[in-house]
Amino acid sequence: MERRIGLLGGGQLGQMLCEAANPLGAKIWVLDAAGSPAKQINARTSHVDGSFTDPEKIRELARQVDILTVEIEHVDTHVLEEIAERGVQVTAADGSKSVKTVEVQPSWKTIRTIQDKYLQKDHLTRGGVKTAVSMAVEGSNLEAVGRELGYPFMLKSRKDAYDGRGNYPVKSSADISDALEALAGKSLYAEKWANFRLELAVMVVKTENDTSDCGKSTIAYSVVETVHEDSVCKLVYAPPRDVSVIVQQEAQDLARKAVGSFPGKGVFGVELFLLPDGELIVNEIAPRPHNSGHWTIEGCPTMSQFKSQLLAILGLMPSFPNSTIPAMFPATVMLNILGGKTQTSHNKLMNMAIAAPAGALHMYGKDSKPGRKIGHITVIGSSLSEAEALIAPLIAVADDIRAERKGLPRTTSILSSLVPAAARPLVAVTMGSDSDLPVLKPGLALLTTLAIPYHVTITSAHRTPQRMTDFAASAASKGFKVIIAAAGGAAHLPGMIAASTPLPVIGVPVKGSTLDGMDSLLSIVQMPRGVPVATVAINNSINAALLAARILGAHDGAIQRRLVEYAATMGEEVVGKAARLEDVGFEKY
Amino acid sequence: MERRIGLLGGGQLGQMLCEAANPLGAKIWVLDAAGSPAKQINARTSHVDGSFTDPEKIRELARQVDILTVEIEHVDTHVLEEIAERGVQVTAADGSKSVKTVEVQPSWKTIRTIQDKYLQKDHLTRGGVKTAVSMAVEGSNLEAVGRELGYPFMLKSRKDAYDGRGNYPVKSSADISDALEALAGKSLYAEKWANFRLELAVMVVKTENDTSDCGKSTIAYSVVETVHEDSVCKLVYAPPRDVSVIVQQEAQDLARKAVGSFPGKGVFGVELFLLPDGELIVNEIAPRPHNSGHWTIEGCPTMSQFKSQLLAILGLMPSFPNSTIPAMFPATVMLNILGGKTQTSHNKLMNMAIAAPAGALHMYGKDSKPGRKIGHITVIGSSLSEAEALIAPLIAVADDIRAERKGLPRTTSILSSLVPAAARPLVAVTMGSDSDLPVLKPGLALLTTLAIPYHVTITSAHRTPQRMTDFAASAASKGFKVIIAAAGGAAHLPGMIAASTPLPVIGVPVKGSTLDGMDSLLSIVQMPRGVPVATVAINNSINAALLAARILGAHDGAIQRRLVEYAATMGEEVVGKAARLEDVGFEKY
Repeated sequence: MERRIGLLGGGQLGQMLCEAANPLGAKIWVLDAAGSPAKQINARTSHVDGSFTDPEKIRELARQVDILTVEIEHVDTHVLEEIAERGVQVTAADGSKSVKTVEVQPSWKTIRTIQDKYLQKDHLTRGGVKTAVSMAVEGSNLEAVGRELGYPFMLKSRKDAYDGRGNYPVKSSADISDALEALAGKSLYAEKWANFRLELAVMVVKTENDTSDCGKSTIAYSVVETVHEDSVCKLVYAPPRDVSVIVQQEAQDLARKAVGSFPGKGVFGVELFLLPDGELIVNEIAPRPHNSGHWTIEGCPTMSQFKSQLLAILGLMPSFPNSTIPAMFPATVMLNILGGKTQTSHNKLMNMAIAAPAGALHMYGKDSKPGRKIGHITVIGSSLSEAEALIAPLIAVADDIRAERKGLPRTTSILSSLVPAAARPLVAVTMGSDSDLPVLKPGLALLTTLAIPYHVTITSAHRTPQRMTDFAASAASKGFKVIIAAAGGAAHLPGMIAASTPLPVIGVPVKGSTLDGMDSLLSIVQMPRGVPVATVAINNSINAALLAARILGAHDGAIQRRLVEYAATMGEEVVGKAARLEDVGFEKY
Repeated sequence: MERRIGLLGGGQLGQMLCEAANPLGAKIWVLDAAGSPAKQINARTSHVDGSFTDPEKIRELARQVDILTVEIEHVDTHVLEEIAERGVQVTAADGSKSVKTVEVQPSWKTIRTIQDKYLQKDHLTRGGVKTAVSMAVEGSNLEAVGRELGYPFMLKSRKDAYDGRGNYPVKSSADISDALEALAGKSLYAEKWANFRLELAVMVVKTENDTSDCGKSTIAYSVVETVHEDSVCKLVYAPPRDVSVIVQQEAQDLARKAVGSFPGKGVFGVELFLLPDGELIVNEIAPRPHNSGHWTIEGCPTMSQFKSQLLAILGLMPSFPNSTIPAMFPATVMLNILGGKTQTSHNKLMNMAIAAPAGALHMYGKDSKPGRKIGHITVIGSSLSEAEALIAPLIAVADDIRAERKGLPRTTSILSSLVPAAARPLVAVTMGSDSDLPVLKPGLALLTTLAIPYHVTITSAHRTPQRMTDFAASAASKGFKVIIAAAGGAAHLPGMIAASTPLPVIGVPVKGSTLDGMDSLLSIVQMPRGVPVATVAINNSINAALLAARILGAHDGAIQRRLVEYAATMGEEVVGKAARLEDVGFEKY
C-alpha cells in the first residue's frame, strides 16, 4: 500500500472508492471540486481542487501520485496518454526539473475506446462479442440507416451520454429530422433496436494489462438484474429474479470475454440484454466501478467492487476459485435514492432504510436535485422472496417521491406495502393426503408452542409427482432448514422428497387400515444407501416436531433451551404422576 | 439524521464510528488532537482540536452539537454532568448569551460508575449480576484482604486502567509491599482471583434511558470468545470455539441484564468469564464500542456495533426478533494487529490480509509503536473450522512480530501453522458394543470424505449406563451438533441417549443373529412421545452419516454444497451403469 493513487472525479463512486481505501491504508488524492463527496471522507491527503477535464489539473494530480485512475470515463484521454507514455515533469526543491513516471489504469486506450460508444461497440464486434448492430452516421444518411437496421432504431450520441441522455428513438423515417435536431452538434451513431426481455449486469475485475488471454485474467462477480425507470437505474437484484443459473453462467462468460479484450487493469461494469430467445448481448461497458455493483459493499463484505478496483490497479488482486467472486448472501437488492421535488422529499425513505435491520443506507453527501442520484439502499435477505418483501415498502416510497417530482398521481398505496412479512418458516411440513392431517396436528401444535415457524402443504408422491419434486428441490433455496413428511401405506413421499433436497427430511409413518402401520414404517425407514430419511415412530408427529426442533436447536440456543425446558416439564409430569400413584395406590389411580 | 453528534476521542473506535456515520448522512464533530484517526476520514465538519479531558474543549464541542458521546470512558464526567444537567452557554452573533441543551449518551452517571472499576463491580453486585468478589482497599489493609479473598488475589487500580495496565497479582502476603509500590498513588481495590476456563464477550445495545425494565430494552449481539495475550486482546472468535449454545444464551441474558442496569443509551461491551463449572460472571463493562465487537463490521454487514451506537444514541435503533442481532455468517474471526519492533514489522501481515479473499483489513492510520493496536483483520468462514484455517497463517505472522518485538525466539514455524487447526468434532458417534463397529465403518469413512469432523466411542446402555448418560448429557456443551448411535437387539442406546440430550440423535439399527434386525429397528424407532430418535434403515450407517451431514448443512453452506455434489456423483454413477447395461445387454452385464 505504498503506491499513491490519483483519482479523476470525486463523486459517489470516488467516495465509495475512498471508503474502501481508508481501512486498507491506501491513500487517494482526488481531483474534483472542493467539498466533492470523495473529499468529504478523505482528509488524509492534499487533494487537487479543479475539473477532472482540465489537462493542467490532471498533470498537477499526476505529480503527487504513482498511479492514476478514474471514476468516470468522460475524461481527456489525450493528457492521460501523454502522462502514461511520457511521464509528467516535476520540479525539485532546488529548481531542477525531471520527468516522473506515472501509471494510468485502466489504460487510456481503453477509456478512449469506451467513451465513444460507437468505437466501443465496433471494438466488441471485432472481438467476437455479441452486441447491438451499430452503424456510424455520416452526414445525415439516416434514410439509408433505417433501411439497413429497420424501424424503430436508436440514434445515439457517441460521447458524453449517460442515463439515457443523448439517445433518440427513431420510430419511422418521419422522426428523422426531429432526431437530428434533438442531437444537433453531436457526433452520432445508430443502433439496431433490441427488444430485450430484461437487463442483466456483471462486474468484472481485470488483473493483467494484456488482452491476449481471452479474458482468463478476469474475475466476475455474480450476475445481477437491473431495472431502469426514466432511463436511470432504479433497482438491482442479486441474483436476478427469473434467470436460470445456466444463463447466469453464460452472462459471466460473455462479460469476462468482453472485458478481457480491453488493455489495462481495474473493475468494469458490463451491461447486458437478455433477449426473448435466451440470447445475451452486451449493451455497454463502463471502465470503472458501476451502479450495478453497489450491492457488493454488503453482499461481498470482504471484497466489494471498490476494493477490487483498488487491488486490481495496484496489482494486488487475489485469485478466486472458478474466477468468480460469489455473493455471500442468498439475496441482495439495491434501490437508488433519487432527489425529489424538494430538498427533503427523500427523508422518509432515508428513515425507513435506517429502521430496517437488514438494510444499509448510503447517502453520498450531495445536494438533492430532482432526479439526481443522491444515495442508495441495500437490503439483505436469506432468500430472494424475503429480500423482495424487505425492499417492497421502500420501493413504494421511492415511487411516491417520483410521482411527486413528476406531478403524477400516486399509484401505489404505502399502507398495503407496509404489512410486515410473516416470520420466515424454518420447517416445511407436507403430507401425502389430507387424511394424514389428524396425525400431524399434535406435531404442528407443538411447533407453535416451541415458537418455531413452519409452512404446511400437501404433496402426493403418486398423484402430484412433479409438484412434490418442485417442492423438495426448491425448499433449501426458500430458506427452509428441515422438512417433515408424513405418509401411509406404500409411503414413498418422505424418501422421494429426500431424493430431491440436501435438507434433512423427517418421515412420519402413518398407520393405515391394514398392517398396523408396518407398511408405512418400512417404506419410510428402509431407504437405500445415499438417501436418508430420519424416521420416527408410527403416527408420532410429536417426535417429528421435537426432532425438527433439535435439528434447529443445534445452531440456535434459544430453541435448544426451550427443548431443555420441555424435557424438564415432561419429567416433572411423570414425577407428579408417580407421586399421585404412590399416594392413592394403583387401584384408585 | 438532523441531530449533530459530538464525539470525545478520535482514536480507532471514533474512526470506525465515523465510517458508519458517513453513509448514513450523520455528522460527527470530533474532539481530539489534529490528524487523529477519526478526523482523517471525516472532513464534513469543523472538528475541535484538543484533549478530550479538557473541560473547556468539551464545552466548545458541546456548543456545536446536539448530542455528546464517547469512544473512551476515561473522560471528565463532571463537565459531562454540567452539560447534561445545565446545558452549555452559547453566544449569538449579536453578542447575546443563552443556554443550549445538549444530551449526553450514555449517561454521565453510567460513565462515572463504569470508569471506577470498584464502583462498577459494586453496582453490578447490588443489581444481582454475578461478578468477581471485590473489596475496596483503604489504607494498606491488604493482609486482611488476603485473609478474606484468599491468595492469589488481584490488586487493581480503580481508574484509568486498561489492557492489563494497573493490575498486580498478589500471590502471597510477601507480594503486598511490591504490589503497593507498583500501584503507588492510585486508588485501589482488590478482586478475588477468577480461575476462568475462557473469556467470552457480548456487545449489548441499550435503547432506552431508564433502568427499570431489567434489560428488556437491550439487544444483544452474538457471543464471542476473546483470547488475550500480554493482557491485550489478540483474537475474537464468533461464535466461541467450544461453548454450548445454552451457555451462549445465558451469556447474552447476563450481559443484557448487566447493561440494562445502567442509565442511558448506546452500545456496551460486556466481558465475561466462563468458570470451569459452567458458571458465568461479568468481568467488566465498557460503555462504548469495544474491540470484541469489531467482527460485526463484516459479520453483521447491515448493523455493525458502530451503526448500533449511532442509532441507539439518536433513538433510531430498530427492534430485532428475540432482542438479538444475529451473526450473518457461520463463523468470523478477528485478529488484532499490534505494532512490532520497527515501523514496517507489520507490513507482511497487512499484505497477507490483503491477499486473503475472505479477509478484511482495517488499518487505523496510527503511527506504529511496539505493542500498540494499529489495525485488525477479520476473516469470514462458512464454518468455524474453515475460519480457523483461514486465520492460522495470519496468527503465525502475528506471533513472529511479537517474538521479534519482545526479543523472544520464534517459537512457531509458519509452515507448521499452515496446517489447518485440528478440526473440532461436530458429530459424536457411539455404539453399544465394538461388534457394531463394522456396520458403522462405511458411515465414518463417508464423514471423512465429506470433511465433517467426528469423535467415535463406545457407550453401552446396559453395561455402562452412567457413562452413557454422562456422554449424552455433556455432548451439547462440548460443541457436538449431532449424535449417531448404533445398537442391535434390544437396542436401547439411541433412545436412552436421546433422553439425556437436546441434540438430534440418529439411530442405526444393527442386524443381529435373529429376527433380521427387526428387533433393533423397532427398539430404536418406536420411541414414546417426547423423545425422538431419527431412525435410518437397518445397518445403513451411510445414511446416518448423510443425515448428520444434512443436519449440519442446513446451517453450513459449504457442507450443503458438498452434499449436492455427492448426490450429483451418485446420480452420474447410476446413469453410467445404465449406459453400460444398455450397451452390453443384461446377459453380459
